[in-house]
Order: sequence, then structure tokens, then C-alpha cells
Amino acid sequence: MEYRFSSRVSQLTSSAVRDILKLTQGKDLISFAGGLPAEELFPVDAVREAADRVFRAGPGVLQYGLTEGYTPLREQLCERMSKKGMAVTPDEMLMTTGSQQAIYQLVGVLTEPGDTVLVEMPTYLSSLQVFALHGVQTAAVESDEDGMIPEYAEEMIKRHKPKLLYAVMTFGNPTGRVWSVERRKAILDICRKYGVLIIEDDPYGDIKFNPEDSIPTLFSLEGKAQDSIVVYTGSFSKTVAPALRTGWAMGDKRIMEMAAKTKQAADLHSSTLDQQILSQLLQFFDLDGHIAMISREYGNRMLEMHRLLEQAALPGVKWQKARGGMFLWLELPDGLDAEALLRCAVQKGVAFVPGSPFYAASPKRNTARLNFTHNTGERTAAGVARFAEAIGEFTARS
Amino acid sequence: MEYRFSSRVSQLTSSAVRDILKLTQGKDLISFAGGLPAEELFPVDAVREAADRVFRAGPGVLQYGLTEGYTPLREQLCERMSKKGMAVTPDEMLMTTGSQQAIYQLVGVLTEPGDTVLVEMPTYLSSLQVFALHGVQTAAVESDEDGMIPEYAEEMIKRHKPKLLYAVMTFGNPTGRVWSVERRKAILDICRKYGVLIIEDDPYGDIKFNPEDSIPTLFSLEGKAQDSIVVYTGSFSKTVAPALRTGWAMGDKRIMEMAAKTKQAADLHSSTLDQQILSQLLQFFDLDGHIAMISREYGNRMLEMHRLLEQAALPGVKWQKARGGMFLWLELPDGLDAEALLRCAVQKGVAFVPGSPFYAASPKRNTARLNFTHNTGERTAAGVARFAEAIGEFTARS
Repeated sequence: MEYRFSSRVSQLTSSAVRDILKLTQGKDLISFAGGLPAEELFPVDAVREAADRVFRAGPGVLQYGLTEGYTPLREQLCERMSKKGMAVTPDEMLMTTGSQQAIYQLVGVLTEPGDTVLVEMPTYLSSLQVFALHGVQTAAVESDEDGMIPEYAEEMIKRHKPKLLYAVMTFGNPTGRVWSVERRKAILDICRKYGVLIIEDDPYGDIKFNPEDSIPTLFSLEGKAQDSIVVYTGSFSKTVAPALRTGWAMGDKRIMEMAAKTKQAADLHSSTLDQQILSQLLQFFDLDGHIAMISREYGNRMLEMHRLLEQAALPGVKWQKARGGMFLWLELPDGLDAEALLRCAVQKGVAFVPGSPFYAASPKRNTARLNFTHNTGERTAAGVARFAEAIGEFTARS
Repeated sequence: MEYRFSSRVSQLTSSAVRDILKLTQGKDLISFAGGLPAEELFPVDAVREAADRVFRAGPGVLQYGLTEGYTPLREQLCERMSKKGMAVTPDEMLMTTGSQQAIYQLVGVLTEPGDTVLVEMPTYLSSLQVFALHGVQTAAVESDEDGMIPEYAEEMIKRHKPKLLYAVMTFGNPTGRVWSVERRKAILDICRKYGVLIIEDDPYGDIKFNPEDSIPTLFSLEGKAQDSIVVYTGSFSKTVAPALRTGWAMGDKRIMEMAAKTKQAADLHSSTLDQQILSQLLQFFDLDGHIAMISREYGNRMLEMHRLLEQAALPGVKWQKARGGMFLWLELPDGLDAEALLRCAVQKGVAFVPGSPFYAASPKRNTARLNFTHNTGERTAAGVARFAEAIGEFTARS
């Protein structure tokens, strides 16, 4: 039997990250590849207690829910958001299956096939899959340590007339970078001028290594959801746990209503059990204390990986310390192809993600993303040693 | 701020069922509208115990999972399926957020915008939204008590060259009908002849009122997933609980791989907590005993509603007893518009779903879907009395 698949889907490549994740399952490989939080830090006891509270309310908790999401959770989230300077009401919010689904639904309602989206260079890998699936073109904007470069953004807007700009501005994936406040304001101004909507994808914003580090979201710079050009996506995957698959979108009510309509067709609604558990957690668990704890721990792990890399004295390898999030972004020596390096590294028992797939265009093949949150101590040390060994072979060869 | 929405999405109407569900929330309205299972029968204690077992395994259970779904659950499900004559392996199966998502993903990978899908007349409302969202045309095939009429199906295939045929063949939504074995075989033969794939949507198949009632799925008539023209979708929403939002697709491995790719972009994966809970349930809970219990109870509720409707002696109102599932399908007197009736009924304190939105074309406006699973005893009696009163007003008027 010959099956005929949608042309858009046939062209879709599977995410390199997820494929490596799959390949390495069960193998004795030290993986810096996946964007995996540290599972030993998941608040499983608190989640169990929260679940118990949910179940105690009786069988009604297992009924169908609203597409928009569990109302008490949306109310609690709005309160949390307001503490971060983001004024939003429950009807300006849509609960989703992770922020990945929030991005997918938003791109679906805000673009037509053939439209263009501006993205960072490099950008979040799985956002590129979303764009491809919706038949949307991407235009990559030159970016540096401080974020997208406004002049390039304006030039690209004039040239491509994009509907959307998509970026992870705080502790970005893959680079870990933080956009400066000036850049945030400059990009906001430009997008306002040309009527380009912005998807501010912020799954990592809470994971900051210096608690004093104050980074305003674009959404907070806009002040409110109504008439805003910013739509914000958030997630509990990094702050609580990925298995609960709960994220959200927030923005103008008209956009949220449209996204709820398409979500209704896509899956009716996300897990109500997960949403109720999170609602109980927000009420009875010190989530902010928990986030502070994992942020401290992740900060230490980042420093440790940084120290190990420095110690390895890899010739021509450059990176910057991360201020938050989950990743270090490495520039390898000119001419070193990170995909070839990965094949060698996997044989030595360590995995990472080559940088190329994160580029919508003109990939820098000598870049790599290393996750520092999932391993500790000896495993991190052994992993970096194996990584250094692989690099050594390549630099010796060339 | 003027937002520009995707033209496909702008045209999308919200599901009438869901909108009524939303309107009636919190009001003292007896609703026969939603396709809601009886929440007092949900196995909440067993679910709580299952969740406990999951959490006892430690924090690792809260980590990211595979897009394809939790592997032990897929293995257990394959075993269950094989007992129903459906031979399938875990890599021929994709876990989804309810069977709604299974349909959405399958239509996405198996069609191009502009393609045609054959549907029943009437058909599942939210499937029509999926088709609209993917830019797919629908062609409705004349159907009767025994299912789609093969001659019409063949004629429509010749005329529209559809890629897909979609149907709920067992205890259908909205009609509650069961396709006869002859019709199943005839439609299979025709689809094989013309190379038309079939999505067999089977969320209700387990809820049969006569345990001896033997109804072969199309998937089982094909025998195996490989090279099959049938892709099957199932769900735990009706047999366990909707809040766990777990359904699945099964079919040829190549189709499942494509659907997993698009699901990865859509939401990475469905709730792993829900899937692990279901896996524990399948191991330690007598799910078949539970299904037998709810089926007996639903059968009694159907008979009770049937009896009440007969007793009300509504002139010109026709329906058939259901052999399973959740719905009675009523034909009202000629010229009676069920949407007008609904407005009147809601004022009297009862809701149902008018039949029109279930039709892809040529709606029969004098039809209505009544759910019999969600109410019992006095509420059902009061609801039918109010419904009869509303009808009385209309028939008196005309």
C-alpha cells in the first residue's frame, strides 16, 4: 500500500533533539543534548499531595473541562503574572499542552500559509517545525549577545512584510542569551510602527541564577493584554515538571478566543487532572521557594560545566556563562562541523546538540548547545572529558 | 489594534455543543446536550490509587516523555486490542490528547488543503471543524439505519476522488447507529478498490448494552495495521474519564510516524502523568468489569429516557432505541426547526443539541441529539417533561 502524505508534512524533518533523545534512551550515554530539567529536583511529594487534594473532591474532577482551561488555575496564574508586571485576566489566557502547543495554536490563527515570521539567529528548533507545518516562511534576523539587532529587524520587516516576530528573549534556547532592555524596547517600537505581532516565548524566564536580576518581559513593557502587539507564552514544564504538560498563552482576548476555537478542534482541551493538580500546587505549595531552589542548583551546575570546559582548555572553543535557563552555547573552531563531532562524541559516550538545526538560514555549522541542568558531579565531569576528547581528535586532525 | 486572523480560522464556527456547554455552566438547566459521561460512575478511587503507584516510583515519572506515548501503556493497549481481533504493535500506535487529537493529526498528515473527505450524514460535529481547519472539503454520503449506503459512497468517490472516508461506525455520534457487518464489508471493498483511506473513529464501541452484541471493527476486518486502508482511533474518555485526555490512533507504521512528527510540533507529547495513571489502571484495576458496569447503567438510562419519551406521546417525533453509546437521535415533525425549539427549551430549563450542525451538507433541521448518560431519575424525567412541553408549544402553534 502506497500512502500519500501531505506535502507539508513530508518535508517536515523530525527534531534532531528529540531524535537523539530517542536514540539514547536506555543507553549508557551522558547526554547534554535534551533540554531536560533535573528530575531529582521535581517536587514529586508536593505533586502527589496536590493530586490527593484533587481526588478528594470526588469523581466530578474527572469530567470534561473548558477548552480555555481550568478557571481557578487561570485566575491564580493571572495573579502570579500581575506580580511580574503583567496585567492579564482569565479571558485573556488559554491553557495549553505545554507552551509548545501555545506557539502552535498562535501561529495557526495569526498567519496564512505563505506568510513570513521573523526569528532569531539561531532560534528555538521546534518553533521552526511549527512554522513549516503551518506553511509559513521564516526570515532570520542577525542577532548578537543582546538580542536581535534592531536595524536588521527593520530591514527584514521592510523586505518581507512579516505578520509575526517570534523570539525567546530571556535565557534563550539555544543560546541562553538575554535581550537587553534597550533592545526589547527598540524591537517593540519597530514592531509597533509596522504592525508586526510579537510572540514572546518565555519558558525559562523564572530560572535566573541571580535573584536580583531584573528582566522586564515585553508583555510587561506593553502593560496590558488588550490591544497589545505582544502575545506571551509560558510553561510549568521547567518550574514544576514537564510530565504535567501545562503551558499557556496570554494576549488580547480576540486572539485568545480564536486560539481556543482552533484548540477545540485540535484536542477539545488539555488534561484537566494536570491543571487541577497545578492549581492545588499554586495554593498549597511554595512554588516560588521551589523555583529559587532549582535556580540556585542550576546556577551551580552551569558554573561547574563552565569550569570544566575552561579546565579542558579546548583550543578555539568560545562560550559565555549563562545568567539563567538551561543551556551553554558553544562556538567551535572555524571549520569544525558539529554534526561530525556529534557522531564522534556519541561513540565516546556523550551527546549534545549541533547548532545548525537551530538556524532558519545560513547555519553556523561550528556551534553546539550543551544542557547543564540534567547531569551533576561525576557525570558532568566525565561528559565534558569525553566531549573534550572528541574535540581533541578533530582539532588534531585538522 | 486590528488583528488579522488566518482566513481558515476566521471562518471556523465554534462547536454548538461546546458553546451550549459553556452557556449552561452553573445554571439550573437539565442538559441532554453535552456528550458527558456520568461523573458519579468515574472510578475516582482507582484513579487515585493508580496515581499513588505512579508517584511512588519517584520524581523520574515527571520527566519529558516520548512523542509516541508512554511505551508500557502502548504495549498494554496492544494486548487489549488483540483481544478484539485487532493485531497491532506499539510502533503502530500513537497516544494522543483524546481521540479528537488523533483525528486532527491524522487528517493533517493524510490530506492536502483542497482534498475531499467523505463523511456520514449526519456526522460527528467536531470532525467537521477538523476538516475545515485543515482546509479540507467534505462530501456527505447518504446514510440510513445500517450505515453509509455503499452505492452512494461509490458514486461520491467517483465524483469527488476523496483521500479519506471518516465515520463513527459503532454507536455513532450523533445518531447512535451501528453499521451492519454487510455495510462495513461493502464500504471496505469500495475503499480498497479506489484507494480511499478510512478513519474509523471508535470512542463508544466498548459501551454496548447487550454484552453478547458482537460488532467487528473495520480494523479487525482488515486484520492487521500494516498496509491497511483503515486507521483506527480510540479513547479512554468514555471508558475511564475524560479529564485524563488520553486517546490513541493505530494504523500502518508509516502513517503513525508521520502523525508523531506533526504531533511533536503541535505539543511535543500528551500528559505523561495521565498515561502512566492509565497504565497502572490497566494493570491493577478491573477495567472490563468497570466498562460492563457503566454499560449496564447507561443501557438502563437509555431505556428510561426512551420510556419517558414514549410516555410523553410526542406527535410526529420518531427515534430508535440505542444499542450502545450515549445518544438518542430524534426526528421531529416536518417543519419543526430544532434550533428554534432549543431556544424555547432552554427557557423551560432543558438543553439538547439541534441536529443541523452535524450535517456537512443539506441539514435536516428537524432533528435533535439527546444524551442519556449524564442525568438520572427525576432529572431525566423533569428534563423530558420540559422538552415535551417545548415541543407541545411548537406543534400547537403550527
